[in-house]
Amino acid sequence: MTGRWTVGVDFGGTNVKVGLVSSTGRVEAIRVLASQEVGRPARFVASVSEAVGRLSRSVGERPSTLRGVGVGVPGPVDVRRDVVECLVNVPGWRGVPLRRLLERRLRCRCAVDNDANLAALGEFAFGAGRGAACLVCLTLGTGVGGGLVLDGSLVHGAGGAAGEVGHMVIDPRGPRCGCGARGCLEAHVGTAALLRMGRRALRQGAGPLRRLSQASGGGLTPELLSRAARLGDARAQRIWTAFGRWLGIGVANLVNLLNPDRVVLGGGVAGAWSLFYPSLSRTVRAQALGPAVRAVRVVRARLGTRAGVVGAAVLLWEGTGGKPA
Amino acid sequence: MTGRWTVGVDFGGTNVKVGLVSSTGRVEAIRVLASQEVGRPARFVASVSEAVGRLSRSVGERPSTLRGVGVGVPGPVDVRRDVVECLVNVPGWRGVPLRRLLERRLRCRCAVDNDANLAALGEFAFGAGRGAACLVCLTLGTGVGGGLVLDGSLVHGAGGAAGEVGHMVIDPRGPRCGCGARGCLEAHVGTAALLRMGRRALRQGAGPLRRLSQASGGGLTPELLSRAARLGDARAQRIWTAFGRWLGIGVANLVNLLNPDRVVLGGGVAGAWSLFYPSLSRTVRAQALGPAVRAVRVVRARLGTRAGVVGAAVLLWEGTGGKPA
Repeated sequence: MTGRWTVGVDFGGTNVKVGLVSSTGRVEAIRVLASQEVGRPARFVASVSEAVGRLSRSVGERPSTLRGVGVGVPGPVDVRRDVVECLVNVPGWRGVPLRRLLERRLRCRCAVDNDANLAALGEFAFGAGRGAACLVCLTLGTGVGGGLVLDGSLVHGAGGAAGEVGHMVIDPRGPRCGCGARGCLEAHVGTAALLRMGRRALRQGAGPLRRLSQASGGGLTPELLSRAARLGDARAQRIWTAFGRWLGIGVANLVNLLNPDRVVLGGGVAGAWSLFYPSLSRTVRAQALGPAVRAVRVVRARLGTRAGVVGAAVLLWEGTGGKPA
Repeated sequence: MTGRWTVGVDFGGTNVKVGLVSSTGRVEAIRVLASQEVGRPARFVASVSEAVGRLSRSVGERPSTLRGVGVGVPGPVDVRRDVVECLVNVPGWRGVPLRRLLERRLRCRCAVDNDANLAALGEFAFGAGRGAACLVCLTLGTGVGGGLVLDGSLVHGAGGAAGEVGHMVIDPRGPRCGCGARGCLEAHVGTAALLRMGRRALRQGAGPLRRLSQASGGGLTPELLSRAARLGDARAQRIWTAFGRWLGIGVANLVNLLNPDRVVLGGGVAGAWSLFYPSLSRTVRAQALGPAVRAVRVVRARLGTRAGVVGAAVLLWEGTGGKPA
């Protein structure tokens, strides 16, 4: 219970990463399982427990001598009922008491939270959010995830569903979002929106974007859009400018609402940082109110794909007062 | 310091209300000062202190035997630097250490916070937010103020400027807001927006709205708009439907972001509740995500114009652990 080592588990769409995390937030070793193979709750508990056992033995511990095991899942966790409410795109996970199932198996303290919350917590403790009092973290990818850390604690809301930044409507006549509403932040800056704009640009003319797409067999990805923009493709550059403007509206709303001193942007799409940051920053400065703008820094995430594993480990420390002991 | 009585002060645009509040949240007695006469900090401290002295003597106490004095001000309070940052529409209040000035004069514990925060805190402790874990309170009037109470504590953000719900952009091609941005919630549901829509309706045709306006010498107020709608004026009714839809977009965004179990709507314009609630409720249910919608109740404020005074008193209890002792 009071060991030096914590295990952080990040249940992603493709992989389940199980990492051994030191008390300084370093990921010492990692085991990667295929999400499809460990999908159902019982199987997940068995596979993760086995990985935890191997990792703990590699540093001369047993699961029961670890500080604990934290798990991030891709869906809301009802912190009051202590169950995983449901998972996005993974069947068989409705109302699962994952924390209790893991504790029974591993005989150490376990904790479960939403993956976007844990990315925020990881960045807060050991990444780009270090030293902040109030942090908003956005994860930019297929969807737009969000996590809020206020005065050192994760915000869960009444039922664990807080942080749904991606479904903030910023344009009610805008494009339809996967959730059914119109003009959500995600409908403007999620991967699907980027690709929609990219396909339009491809149809409109030649240039680096078309060449890159043809070289990749007609493919189109956010990464390809950013390479084209860096090679001088004006249409691709305009897409990232628009992306920054829409994201800036969302960030400015969060700045006005929560007055954070740090906004951290992570996820794969944040790799295009230099392409969208200028218009993002202009929009935030134009739209957010003076005192709130002066208090905030908008920065790029630092932990990369480790954020989830590190944050899941920090969750155990949070339970002991929010700080590594 | 440990008395039964607390004084709550609400510094409004027209009046400064100084109220004696019991430990059950009842406003026992109130003194009203004209804001214009007590505008500057030194004068404000002197006048409020005199009123506090009179009120405390009326129940056989001295200021120094009160539990304390809480003050709500119309502007951001920097909780870390412990100063009133500035006040909206009141000159001479930049960086004023109001809490310390009052404590020196009154020799009892004092606390200062933003007025919209304190309305939220008052409703949370003794009004429509009773029993909630996470509450969002919107004050509808000339502006749209907001206060957030999460897990029983006010959210201040990094510098005390959190809660600026009114300047959430929900329509970037919408009407220009007083803050300079376009399509803020306030630009759609603040009094100025209601009156703009009302003037257009007046020009368009006869009916109860025009009759009521002519009877009041050509005047137009939100109250008159709601009377006309209740008398069956279709144009006035459409204005409140639109009002509810825009407000619903803002409320749904807050529900997705913070997953509150209670949203409380107060302020003068909330008097038109039955006229805007149907479209508000429809919008929130259509736009907010399932788990968050199921967790929340959107209700009308209960404390009316006393919310600020009661909330200012609760601020003193919050300092002692968030609960009336």
